[in-house]
Amino acid sequence: MKTYFECIPCFLRQTLEAARLTTDDETIHEQVFREVLRVASKINLRESPPVMAQRIHRLIRQMTGDNDPYRDIKDRFNNFALELYSELKERIKRSREPLDTAIRLAIAGNIIDAGVNYHIKETQVHNAIEHALTAPLAGDPKQFREAVSEAKDILYLADNAGEIVFDRLLIEQMPFEKITLVVKGSPVINDACLADARATGIANLVEVIDNGSDAPGTILGECSEGFKRRFENADLIIAKGQGNYETLSDVKKDIFFVLKAKCPVIAQHIGCEVGSLVFLRSARGKDYGKGGDRNAMG
Amino acid sequence: MKTYFECIPCFLRQTLEAARLTTDDETIHEQVFREVLRVASKINLRESPPVMAQRIHRLIRQMTGDNDPYRDIKDRFNNFALELYSELKERIKRSREPLDTAIRLAIAGNIIDAGVNYHIKETQVHNAIEHALTAPLAGDPKQFREAVSEAKDILYLADNAGEIVFDRLLIEQMPFEKITLVVKGSPVINDACLADARATGIANLVEVIDNGSDAPGTILGECSEGFKRRFENADLIIAKGQGNYETLSDVKKDIFFVLKAKCPVIAQHIGCEVGSLVFLRSARGKDYGKGGDRNAMG
Repeated sequence: MKTYFECIPCFLRQTLEAARLTTDDETIHEQVFREVLRVASKINLRESPPVMAQRIHRLIRQMTGDNDPYRDIKDRFNNFALELYSELKERIKRSREPLDTAIRLAIAGNIIDAGVNYHIKETQVHNAIEHALTAPLAGDPKQFREAVSEAKDILYLADNAGEIVFDRLLIEQMPFEKITLVVKGSPVINDACLADARATGIANLVEVIDNGSDAPGTILGECSEGFKRRFENADLIIAKGQGNYETLSDVKKDIFFVLKAKCPVIAQHIGCEVGSLVFLRSARGKDYGKGGDRNAMG
Repeated sequence: MKTYFECIPCFLRQTLEAARLTTDDETIHEQVFREVLRVASKINLRESPPVMAQRIHRLIRQMTGDNDPYRDIKDRFNNFALELYSELKERIKRSREPLDTAIRLAIAGNIIDAGVNYHIKETQVHNAIEHALTAPLAGDPKQFREAVSEAKDILYLADNAGEIVFDRLLIEQMPFEKITLVVKGSPVINDACLADARATGIANLVEVIDNGSDAPGTILGECSEGFKRRFENADLIIAKGQGNYETLSDVKKDIFFVLKAKCPVIAQHIGCEVGSLVFLRSARGKDYGKGGDRNAMG
């Protein structure tokens, strides 16, 4: 997905939030803000939004010397989600369609996105859970069940800290021995890294690898050779969140995009309303029956 | 009032809206957008927001060759407000405090601000009217009545087309022979110009002059010598809208700022909630009893 003009004000908001999170020094806020405006004036709109976001957050880390500005938010939401874990697991168990319920909860967890809403509150997570359990789901869990059943090697691309507890609930409803969870190589916004996978116990359930990148999404060209090989060889990808949709929507691979559409640009790109529960298979995935090349990368 | 970082995303939104209003050519949209980002990266934050807005709208007019992109919106809201005129005049006449009601309606009319909300709908104007008639008014109509009564030469700085019909309703409740209405020298956003004062009949009631400027506010250094003299000599200024507040809030003069606070930056600067009815006297105005210099300019 390309970058739209409408993404720029959002980048600027994120810039201010991250800069203020890192330092009270207004001179640095101003330096970062002006530099982002300068870079934005030359932005390549054919690149996906996480390319610019990656650049912004690198700049903030460099200019402030803080390597992980969102560490507190990540810890807070890892702990909060862990407090919810048992109750949500019970709700899945008691539900008529456990896999469907687990998918819905995984989407609800995608509300914990500090890139979109840095002021995210615990009550908003509760609201997202109740919404997700009843709102329409744009996608077909049955098709997903079949694809998972056929696949031998599944990569689950995580999005944010806290949210990965919700991912754990979904993975527990799947043949998890076939699944590898992928986190980011180093901190960017509140995206999950290895530390978060360990802190939330998901690393005890499945293999966890990192993608070697600090982009808030999966920019394949930027990832480690090891991850790219794993991506190439996997026969099913589950991609969580907006950043992974933005960076992988044009990649020729069987991908299920699992996210809550939180911004108007993405909602329009997908063709849904803001707030929708998205559970979308890539075009390449849908082509399967027609003899498509399962492992081609875009 | 200075420009805040938070103003920049709003400038970008306005840039896109105005560019799209003027042409369907996406190459021009992109050129304008990039140029505004470049200029914004070097912005002098000590200047008021209308300085940047003036620059943006000049740029759009130059790059598109359209001298008045908001002409249709201005005509539409002039006509719409004229349709409401008789009914609103009747409501003022029947009310217990006609001047208070007229002030409230003048503030309601300030919702017709295409800089803040280009997609403004007629129903929003109806809603703003009903809200204004009952919501708290931050200011003292009694003090206003006294100041108007004492003044010999009053300048009423208009804001937008359509809105000036609401201003006419207020001016009709005042000793209008002492009042001169001031409009912009040439088109910028949907600010009222001489053509709008004529189209809405207010030019038949009071003297109308223009300020010689294309800024969406009153940047005194940019205005014509004639207007500056009138401003200097006037003993009371009524300044409508956010743009006039932003450009005159630091000027040493007896000014009543009459506006609806529509953006969080201005609301915070004034110390009120977004949506509030603002009817605020300048510090210099409040100093009167202490022997302040009535005509000093900031």
